[in-house]
Amino acid sequence: MNLDYESALTEFRSLLGSGYVKTDKELRLTYQTTTFATTNSIPAVICPLDRDQVQECLRIANRYHIPIYPISTGKNIGYGARVPTADNCVVMELSRLDKIVEYNNELGYVTLQPGVTQRVLYQFLQQQGGKFWMDATGAPMDHSIIGNIAERGFGHTPYGDHFGHVSGMEVVLPNGDCIHTGQGRFAGAKATPIYRWGLGPFIDGLFTQSNLGIITQLTIWLMPAPSYFQNFYFSIAKYEDLAVTIDTLRPLFLDGTIKSAMHIANDHKVLSSFQRYPWDKTNGQTPLPVKVLHDLGKTWDFGAWSAAGALYGTREEIALAKRKIKKQLRKAPIKKLQFLDDTMLKIAIKLQKPLGWVLRLNMPEMLKVLKPVYNLTKGIPTDDIVPSLYWRKPDGAPKIPDPERDKCGLMWVAPIAPINGQYAREIWEITQDVFQYYGYEPAISITLLTERAMDSIISISYDRDIPGEDEKAMRCHDELLKKLTDKGYFPYRLGVQSMGKLPYPESAYTNCMAKIKNALDENGILSPGRYPQ
Amino acid sequence: MNLDYESALTEFRSLLGSGYVKTDKELRLTYQTTTFATTNSIPAVICPLDRDQVQECLRIANRYHIPIYPISTGKNIGYGARVPTADNCVVMELSRLDKIVEYNNELGYVTLQPGVTQRVLYQFLQQQGGKFWMDATGAPMDHSIIGNIAERGFGHTPYGDHFGHVSGMEVVLPNGDCIHTGQGRFAGAKATPIYRWGLGPFIDGLFTQSNLGIITQLTIWLMPAPSYFQNFYFSIAKYEDLAVTIDTLRPLFLDGTIKSAMHIANDHKVLSSFQRYPWDKTNGQTPLPVKVLHDLGKTWDFGAWSAAGALYGTREEIALAKRKIKKQLRKAPIKKLQFLDDTMLKIAIKLQKPLGWVLRLNMPEMLKVLKPVYNLTKGIPTDDIVPSLYWRKPDGAPKIPDPERDKCGLMWVAPIAPINGQYAREIWEITQDVFQYYGYEPAISITLLTERAMDSIISISYDRDIPGEDEKAMRCHDELLKKLTDKGYFPYRLGVQSMGKLPYPESAYTNCMAKIKNALDENGILSPGRYPQ
Repeated sequence: MNLDYESALTEFRSLLGSGYVKTDKELRLTYQTTTFATTNSIPAVICPLDRDQVQECLRIANRYHIPIYPISTGKNIGYGARVPTADNCVVMELSRLDKIVEYNNELGYVTLQPGVTQRVLYQFLQQQGGKFWMDATGAPMDHSIIGNIAERGFGHTPYGDHFGHVSGMEVVLPNGDCIHTGQGRFAGAKATPIYRWGLGPFIDGLFTQSNLGIITQLTIWLMPAPSYFQNFYFSIAKYEDLAVTIDTLRPLFLDGTIKSAMHIANDHKVLSSFQRYPWDKTNGQTPLPVKVLHDLGKTWDFGAWSAAGALYGTREEIALAKRKIKKQLRKAPIKKLQFLDDTMLKIAIKLQKPLGWVLRLNMPEMLKVLKPVYNLTKGIPTDDIVPSLYWRKPDGAPKIPDPERDKCGLMWVAPIAPINGQYAREIWEITQDVFQYYGYEPAISITLLTERAMDSIISISYDRDIPGEDEKAMRCHDELLKKLTDKGYFPYRLGVQSMGKLPYPESAYTNCMAKIKNALDENGILSPGRYPQ
Repeated sequence: MNLDYESALTEFRSLLGSGYVKTDKELRLTYQTTTFATTNSIPAVICPLDRDQVQECLRIANRYHIPIYPISTGKNIGYGARVPTADNCVVMELSRLDKIVEYNNELGYVTLQPGVTQRVLYQFLQQQGGKFWMDATGAPMDHSIIGNIAERGFGHTPYGDHFGHVSGMEVVLPNGDCIHTGQGRFAGAKATPIYRWGLGPFIDGLFTQSNLGIITQLTIWLMPAPSYFQNFYFSIAKYEDLAVTIDTLRPLFLDGTIKSAMHIANDHKVLSSFQRYPWDKTNGQTPLPVKVLHDLGKTWDFGAWSAAGALYGTREEIALAKRKIKKQLRKAPIKKLQFLDDTMLKIAIKLQKPLGWVLRLNMPEMLKVLKPVYNLTKGIPTDDIVPSLYWRKPDGAPKIPDPERDKCGLMWVAPIAPINGQYAREIWEITQDVFQYYGYEPAISITLLTERAMDSIISISYDRDIPGEDEKAMRCHDELLKKLTDKGYFPYRLGVQSMGKLPYPESAYTNCMAKIKNALDENGILSPGRYPQ
């Protein structure tokens, strides 16, 4: 084996220009740093300009047997960001492939490259008149659209299942070959951007949560901007009423009354969006005492669980859906069901002082939290969620937050299950138990994601500056993952921290995927260690 | 290479019992016969009982290098039915794997095997109280549900994109290994039947339109029966008004007002559902003279194009959708927009005599056509469409039709395109030109299939008993396929008649698929010649 980093770097430099082959120690350190402990180091970061350079980089990597770890813009926070799944991978950052290649304003789609971020796409669509909405995630505005799709992330609108709304990938295979999926492999095929299954085997899925290729372009479908829009909220006073509420919501998802993803966050999760850890009220102790949590719940006016969803359509359609939701939710022990539209939000912002006085609430701060959440359901990305990553930091978030630099600790565990109250309760109980043992706040939000699936996003938030916390948080993560999978709750997505930690799957499956991997990546140069095959 | 059919058959017999290894000439002949000319012959038909036997059969096939061609129930009419894509394949019929393995009446899904037909599933769901609807296709009632999914067929309801509504496959690989996709590879994973993407690369698509594995089980999602339902119809008087009508319909699909697939059939297509070729009015001549077609259009009351769709929901939701559709369609040159529900249909059936008198129409015959189409949009399968396959047969259809035995000629060509009037017009013009040259009736129906995709189903109907027709029809097929693909209209699905006839795709793609095929099917025993890799 001819593993020769120096020669490879020389070739990368001659291909990309030396400014795009970064080896200085400080920069490498930032790429090696994420919101939890990792050990893999990076010899270099390479930044190709276009697809041809991506192909050529892979050919070089094959010649020298150098492992390559592609990232889009590297904002996969809580799942490992820019840190590779194996040691000594050259990171290939795709942020320079930043073109919006096509926009179709009749059929509502946009073809783009991995460097296109939430911010860029949102601004682009606004410039085009706002006829179509994108779906946004709570991730930073500079998060790559394709990066999120490749991880099969989801958002908040009816187009929230991101991988479910794409077509016609351009993929560079590990050997440097470039293929076009769907009907795109036939020159001039008109259906490529709008009919994802193509013809013959449908292979797009092979390149998501995978190390089988690098997506350099794809088409995403856009939602026509509805003529009217409403957000709705309610809260659940008692922890134990979660299950029956979820079972009551289920038919509204199945019959399409609610088409958006709907988030149900617990008190810890909600609190972390309002403020940082209340060190002043706890004498510096962790985890958060129940009494303090409940007091803050009164201050900020949240219950055990807080739910939010959205309705899209004409005024008449939304009025109908609203009536159905109200009627159905009468069966559940919920309170304060409220609907909010743009006009009402504007009024609330205008009247925040008198409103706060009447309601005895801190309206300006509440609106600061409400607005980004409201906007997310309209496909408007935001950076306002980033400060919540500073939850356990004694000094809170700086003006320009950088959670990785500032040693914020964060890991996600994201088990998926059928929409079923009993399952939600079990996931919640496992989470509580494990977090209590390790002394973290069990922040969780449960997302009713599709007609039948709900996903729980559990976050382990800690302070990496405190010695021993990295190790303890990882033990907490590992135990949580084990206890959840023991009960059949497997994640919908893994971070670098979770790779290789799942129970062993059936061996025939593993063999099958190993054969495909070997067939497409003879030298095993692409993202070794990424995802269980 | 140890290609030894006799030894293989001996092993098959000892495994399955000799009654399930069929080699008699007459039976083989029926399997070799479809609705167009084929040359591939079949040494045997084997019928395993269960998944274990499927696995063992493939192991035997590998030992003796015998090609195996799996079919579900073999009702893929117009695309080749039971005829393999290569000579000397042993046909493996899966109709004995006929279990409904699980039914979930809360989340609306059913897990089943490839022997489960439209008839069986429909009856099963009725027995369960009709809380959920399946999606049906116009194919025969004994058509396999999984067979259709594996071909990526579609139906008429909001669940019409069949492959888009499945999860958790069980697949036997060419080497006899059995794998479970999605989260199914992890023992006890609860999300398997409801979350299709699973974890890691999504590979289900590999086993559709493919020769990479045999699906022995999967979960399909079911639509909750709506509280109310309406069908709607309209017609377009002039051929040239198709394009503007499709463009007018587009926003109704994009914004979700119409969630069903919508079919727009031309006069030839509609006529063939009412009656067989009018030999009496044409002095035995073909193709159908325009004058006769137009006279019959008056008799049966159809225009150049006839459109049908359906609405699902509450009465209020449907009333809203109806208003939107009416308003939007005022912009299009359509006529006779009519909405029909169960009550109105019942009244029409009751009053058919006086109605026929008032409208000067043959109401009993019209209802005979209308009812199955109406029912299809409610997920009720039907055999009433089969007689239309006898279009060109001098004696029409017998009481118990068997189009293959009776030498009915039928081939489909099914190009897919973005929803766009200009594209529909171009597909229609190409079809007309080619059919005119070859002397067939250009029967076409255009289906608005998803928010952005429309599919055209073009049928070449002829009489296989007339010498030379098989060859001529195939030339017509080949030329149609070529002219369509030249313009970028590629099929969404191929029949045995079309395999290997497409323009060569990009070679990197072909290489990639060949590598995957070789990795999973070392000896190339599974369905050689099936689908362009």
